[in-house]
Amino acid sequence: MRNFILKDENAVFFECGYSCDNEIFISVDGRGYFITDPRYYIEAKECAKNCEVIEAKGNLIKEARLLLRKLGVKMICFNPNDFSHMEYNLLSYNLGVHFIQRPNFSQIKRMVKSKFEIEILKDAAKFGAEKFDEFGEFVNKFGIGMSEKELNFHAQNIFKGSGKFGLSFAPIVAINANAAKAHALPSDTILQLGDLLLLDAGITYKRFCSDRTRTVCVQPGFKFDKNQKFDDAKKDEIYSIVKEAQKLAINAVKPGVQASKIDTIAREYIAKFGYAKEFFHSTGHGVGLDIHELPNINAKSSVILEPGMVFSVEPGIYLEGEFGVRIEDVVVVTDDGCEVL
Amino acid sequence: MRNFILKDENAVFFECGYSCDNEIFISVDGRGYFITDPRYYIEAKECAKNCEVIEAKGNLIKEARLLLRKLGVKMICFNPNDFSHMEYNLLSYNLGVHFIQRPNFSQIKRMVKSKFEIEILKDAAKFGAEKFDEFGEFVNKFGIGMSEKELNFHAQNIFKGSGKFGLSFAPIVAINANAAKAHALPSDTILQLGDLLLLDAGITYKRFCSDRTRTVCVQPGFKFDKNQKFDDAKKDEIYSIVKEAQKLAINAVKPGVQASKIDTIAREYIAKFGYAKEFFHSTGHGVGLDIHELPNINAKSSVILEPGMVFSVEPGIYLEGEFGVRIEDVVVVTDDGCEVL
Repeated sequence: MRNFILKDENAVFFECGYSCDNEIFISVDGRGYFITDPRYYIEAKECAKNCEVIEAKGNLIKEARLLLRKLGVKMICFNPNDFSHMEYNLLSYNLGVHFIQRPNFSQIKRMVKSKFEIEILKDAAKFGAEKFDEFGEFVNKFGIGMSEKELNFHAQNIFKGSGKFGLSFAPIVAINANAAKAHALPSDTILQLGDLLLLDAGITYKRFCSDRTRTVCVQPGFKFDKNQKFDDAKKDEIYSIVKEAQKLAINAVKPGVQASKIDTIAREYIAKFGYAKEFFHSTGHGVGLDIHELPNINAKSSVILEPGMVFSVEPGIYLEGEFGVRIEDVVVVTDDGCEVL
Repeated sequence: MRNFILKDENAVFFECGYSCDNEIFISVDGRGYFITDPRYYIEAKECAKNCEVIEAKGNLIKEARLLLRKLGVKMICFNPNDFSHMEYNLLSYNLGVHFIQRPNFSQIKRMVKSKFEIEILKDAAKFGAEKFDEFGEFVNKFGIGMSEKELNFHAQNIFKGSGKFGLSFAPIVAINANAAKAHALPSDTILQLGDLLLLDAGITYKRFCSDRTRTVCVQPGFKFDKNQKFDDAKKDEIYSIVKEAQKLAINAVKPGVQASKIDTIAREYIAKFGYAKEFFHSTGHGVGLDIHELPNINAKSSVILEPGMVFSVEPGIYLEGEFGVRIEDVVVVTDDGCEVL
């Protein structure tokens, strides 16, 4: 793909090592152009690599049109998910350039990670896991009697590590019935001993994301690990099913396997126990610069796994009004299987 | 506008008092429909008002198409900025529904705030201002010797008030030359006595935003207020110009005035001193559920000010490599002028 135009922050960062929240990146015949407004111009000049930084006098799209015309571009690829319908119309209207739709071409390009990227993702996962331990210690010491809102606030602080890390998404800290909402908003529910507590959180390190979920039984000295024992028999059963589903799915990851197969393995195991309907999301998603990228690990994903692909494996069972269990790790596909980050 | 379709979170929240990060809201003949995926379904049923909540079995756009067909919709408005080019194509392709482009119709609808909304915005501004004081005390006590990154981390914590508030955007905490970048990334620069420090920050309260900027001279006992005295004559001169420009602009706000006029007043005053080029952004922007909404306060804005409009007034002068000054307040247009929130 010789010529392309991008707007997405992570896609632009991938091309030139810098991005801000108002930019257009154009690559023509292998040369990069970074268009931004005066607020970011100085910083972009300092930080963006292998490209010319252009200060837009007015609208960025207008500047992009001028550049495409000046460079005599005939054809250019774009991601129709990356531009709004309005932006695309303004960009392409009567310009005489042929725009070729390439959905998610940057994510496709980034699907197989380099050794360098895998090292960063491993570091991110390691730092993220350390924060699970740190938050576990915090909850043991101070958490009983705190609301989900307070726990969430402290989780955010702990995961940020005094500004060392970003958050790859707002953490989910959910107690009992709230954990049955796969993406719960923090409530005023108070944490008590014996509660089920779900923590889904990740950090960003050098802009790459970590992602992990643990569901635990809050007992004195509990840890955010996979060795959980619930007093309640139903919780214990559901927990064992999810844990085994995740294990089976992870064990099946290796090059040459279709991504949908990993989803099927987790899903069929859960279905065997009658909880097919209660596992209502994909088994996983790619993780990299974006917290959700390619490959998708779902029933429809025809991607064939290759060494260097990085994705989450996160089956769950959610019983409305009762509780939910999800266990999530990120894996990298290796030459003969996978490694949990 | 009888029928419309929305995806933007704040626009949807405005319609039904709830939103999540994956939803489509459709209004047909005055009836609302909230389409979301199973992760948010339970919560949406609990929280979304005056609408039917629909759980999408698959893709939300597919579900929206089914609904539009079922309801026999002939015409529907949409915001071309709200849907990606891809989404719009998937939504509209061969459906037999006429889609009418209404750029930013939700923001236009929200431009004049209700009394109830103004009260919330006033509370948000008050809480935000308190956090400026609190951060000022923090910097006085502990800030000297901290890096911008550390200061930024602590600013985020303080503005969040132990989870009581959200951030309307990532705060900008910039020292000296970094303040010349209107949207600076936090660096490792260390704060020292005598430095110029720019703080641009806001909170969200009941989902409404506050926004404020102060530029101060860091001396023992300094405050984040407008009464600043810099040792350096150039800084002092620039500070006075920006302060006066803001005052003149705010004094000009009243019903019947064109928004561009407010911009012109600040801009011409700054230009008189030879800094036209160094004030390279708009004078202001609307503030509400979105941190940037309508009306725009810039040279092109033909909006005629009306009571209930709420926007920022924030002129600045930025000297690359030296320093920058910006002063920002949010005002609400009243019957005969304006009130600073």
